[in-house]
Amino acid sequence: MKMMTGVMPKETMEISEILASDLYGQTISVNGAVHTVRDMGEVAFVVLRKREGLLQCVYEEGVTAIDLKELKEGAAIEVSGVLNKEDRAPGGFEIRMKEVKILSEPTESLPLPIAKWKMNTSLEAKLNHRAVALRNIRERATFRIQEGIVRGFRDFLYSQEFTEIHTPKLGAKSAEGGANLFKLEYFHRPAILQQSPQFYKQMMVGVFDRVFETAPVFRAEKHNTKRHLNEYNSLDFEMGYIDGFEDIMAMETGFLQYTMELLKKDYAKELDILQIELPDVSQIPAIRFDEAKQRVAEKYDRQFRNPYDLEPEEEHLIGQYAKEEFGSDFVFVTHYPSKKRPFYAMDDPADSTYTLSFDLLYKGLEITTGGQRIHQYDKLMEKIAQRGMETEGMEHYLSAFKYGMPPHGGLGIGMERLTMQLIGEDNVREATLFPRDLSRLEP
Amino acid sequence: MKMMTGVMPKETMEISEILASDLYGQTISVNGAVHTVRDMGEVAFVVLRKREGLLQCVYEEGVTAIDLKELKEGAAIEVSGVLNKEDRAPGGFEIRMKEVKILSEPTESLPLPIAKWKMNTSLEAKLNHRAVALRNIRERATFRIQEGIVRGFRDFLYSQEFTEIHTPKLGAKSAEGGANLFKLEYFHRPAILQQSPQFYKQMMVGVFDRVFETAPVFRAEKHNTKRHLNEYNSLDFEMGYIDGFEDIMAMETGFLQYTMELLKKDYAKELDILQIELPDVSQIPAIRFDEAKQRVAEKYDRQFRNPYDLEPEEEHLIGQYAKEEFGSDFVFVTHYPSKKRPFYAMDDPADSTYTLSFDLLYKGLEITTGGQRIHQYDKLMEKIAQRGMETEGMEHYLSAFKYGMPPHGGLGIGMERLTMQLIGEDNVREATLFPRDLSRLEP
Repeated sequence: MKMMTGVMPKETMEISEILASDLYGQTISVNGAVHTVRDMGEVAFVVLRKREGLLQCVYEEGVTAIDLKELKEGAAIEVSGVLNKEDRAPGGFEIRMKEVKILSEPTESLPLPIAKWKMNTSLEAKLNHRAVALRNIRERATFRIQEGIVRGFRDFLYSQEFTEIHTPKLGAKSAEGGANLFKLEYFHRPAILQQSPQFYKQMMVGVFDRVFETAPVFRAEKHNTKRHLNEYNSLDFEMGYIDGFEDIMAMETGFLQYTMELLKKDYAKELDILQIELPDVSQIPAIRFDEAKQRVAEKYDRQFRNPYDLEPEEEHLIGQYAKEEFGSDFVFVTHYPSKKRPFYAMDDPADSTYTLSFDLLYKGLEITTGGQRIHQYDKLMEKIAQRGMETEGMEHYLSAFKYGMPPHGGLGIGMERLTMQLIGEDNVREATLFPRDLSRLEP
Repeated sequence: MKMMTGVMPKETMEISEILASDLYGQTISVNGAVHTVRDMGEVAFVVLRKREGLLQCVYEEGVTAIDLKELKEGAAIEVSGVLNKEDRAPGGFEIRMKEVKILSEPTESLPLPIAKWKMNTSLEAKLNHRAVALRNIRERATFRIQEGIVRGFRDFLYSQEFTEIHTPKLGAKSAEGGANLFKLEYFHRPAILQQSPQFYKQMMVGVFDRVFETAPVFRAEKHNTKRHLNEYNSLDFEMGYIDGFEDIMAMETGFLQYTMELLKKDYAKELDILQIELPDVSQIPAIRFDEAKQRVAEKYDRQFRNPYDLEPEEEHLIGQYAKEEFGSDFVFVTHYPSKKRPFYAMDDPADSTYTLSFDLLYKGLEITTGGQRIHQYDKLMEKIAQRGMETEGMEHYLSAFKYGMPPHGGLGIGMERLTMQLIGEDNVREATLFPRDLSRLEP
């Protein structure tokens, strides 16, 4: 019988602990993966990859009690040696290796040049060897930034008194969005994977006023583009007692402001690795859909056919317009046409061909869809009838409205798309640990 | 064109803002849902439900500019009136209503007595009317506590330099755990829903050393018990460079210690509502599987048939034993038999019929399974061969080991089970917003 009393202290040191210490000239222990070995003859540099970054060890013949050939790239080792200042090494220090313990060895040499600063490997190859490709320092930094985004989303919303919820991803067949749903059998009953937590988060507004969820969503869309995934993570919130859909956009602006500060503070190392300049989010312009269309057509002398939607090229130009006119990487496009929005979107009382809804474009790419929802049961039923829809499978959702719901609205942010735009990549798969698309179900 | 500059200030006040203010005798505005109306004749108490709790308003004939009959339970309203001290009201204040604006009205009266302190409604009825049942103050408090647990998990692990990951829930068919997997068609290919992020989090240990994920998992088990769900949320972590599986248990103990403090600090209101006394987690005993079996058999004079596993009744008694002998609600049971653990579990070098693994029992219920994993490619392949398993579908997982993996281990915690035990319920559905079980796919 033992007693566990909390986190166990370690004899090995992390990079930040070494930097905060004053142990120069003394013997310390570290562990890590052999990232690269540069043999210079009498000495060799053995660079370890640790969770905080790279750490340089110096191998000296006669001093280090192991043969250099035994140190394979990919091995996990523990080193003890003397800590020395060394300006040319990462962090300004290095460790002169004395003892080396091999914790684990690879059986094959690495299939990708992960020790290079930029791998210059095709996306396809990186995705095929995902668990190895991400060992590259730049590749993995993307996902630290992604952590910061999600963390910022949650922490900001906690501060705004939102409650975090966990809604089911398995559901009964519903009338909404039939074609884009993955279908499966659930104990001899037809079931689907949720394409959005929409109905659940709305129902929970009646309980907690303000709710959010960060979870996967599933879309069986046959898109094969750089912007689409068949499984992605959606950062969703929904809030009650709003005065208008501007409250939603204002809350999202607040989230972005909070998150950029968090990244600056806690993810500076990764921002530096990826050479990211954070966008200015002190103010974000909001332009009406019809006005944006018109301004872009005029300024760039382009005509787009579809009056009810924005083509990718058009979104791109709206982004360019916002940058040129307002110096903003972000722009809200508001009042989307009713016929392009789902039944629960609230129509603009001033003109019911438009809705009180919006998209947020970031560098010309849609990263958010949101808006005010219909909160009155009668109006919801009216809209459903008007569209010739069935209520089958929506009974529980609709019944929540019978018992009273406050005016409310919300949004969903594509986590991978936001990450992709922030790091300046052009394929959403670069910002997805293990992407799922038309052809990819592994790794 | 408008500019969004961040969260918009509100004229209506929240409970905490009122309590922090000194506006007694002045007119303020609040909004909320009409939770209950108690008509006393000349006055009536109109209790509003807000996200922070209940707020008492006083309706006075001739003073309040609306007919009391117009205030239906379930309506969302905005009230302005004079703030008064009132010791008998929640929070020690009430608002004498002057103006009332009805924001939204219900169309039907409530199907459950949600305004009662304890509803005394069957679980079945509560689940059938989930969106309404949760409007009860006690019912919803459970999910605030749940938020605290998940928040504690993440915040503690951030502080321990874990990286948050998001792994796919859709995957290719794999040799592991076939029968318990939900199957679906993914663009004309067979696919499954992941029953655990196990393989992915292990692969990511090679990248970030320490990773965690909080996400849904899916199990097609035909269990119909108070402890099983077919979809639940798993709090998973995996850490590299461990000295032994005790590091994992120590980390979990640290998480529990951190989380109990967080609950005490930020969720005191909900702990009070549910009358929860937080468990002492300053130390948690760890007993070997075989020893626990023996001690329980002796102390309680019970014999259990299965020498390789613990029956629910046996787990219950081990929990009782830990409480009686060590005063602990929690107990780690270590060294589970190898034949009951998955192939990737590391066998105890001292006796390979046992593994370096553990379960954590909380009040006699398993809430965590964890342990050290095999980190060497050759040993992993040996174990697979030994079990007569196929490697089909595990190629990517296995290849990560070819390129070197540190010694590592981790665990998965059932979010709903941990919540259920903390709040003292006996059915896991009480701690699940929208449970999925053999018979329930809605709401």
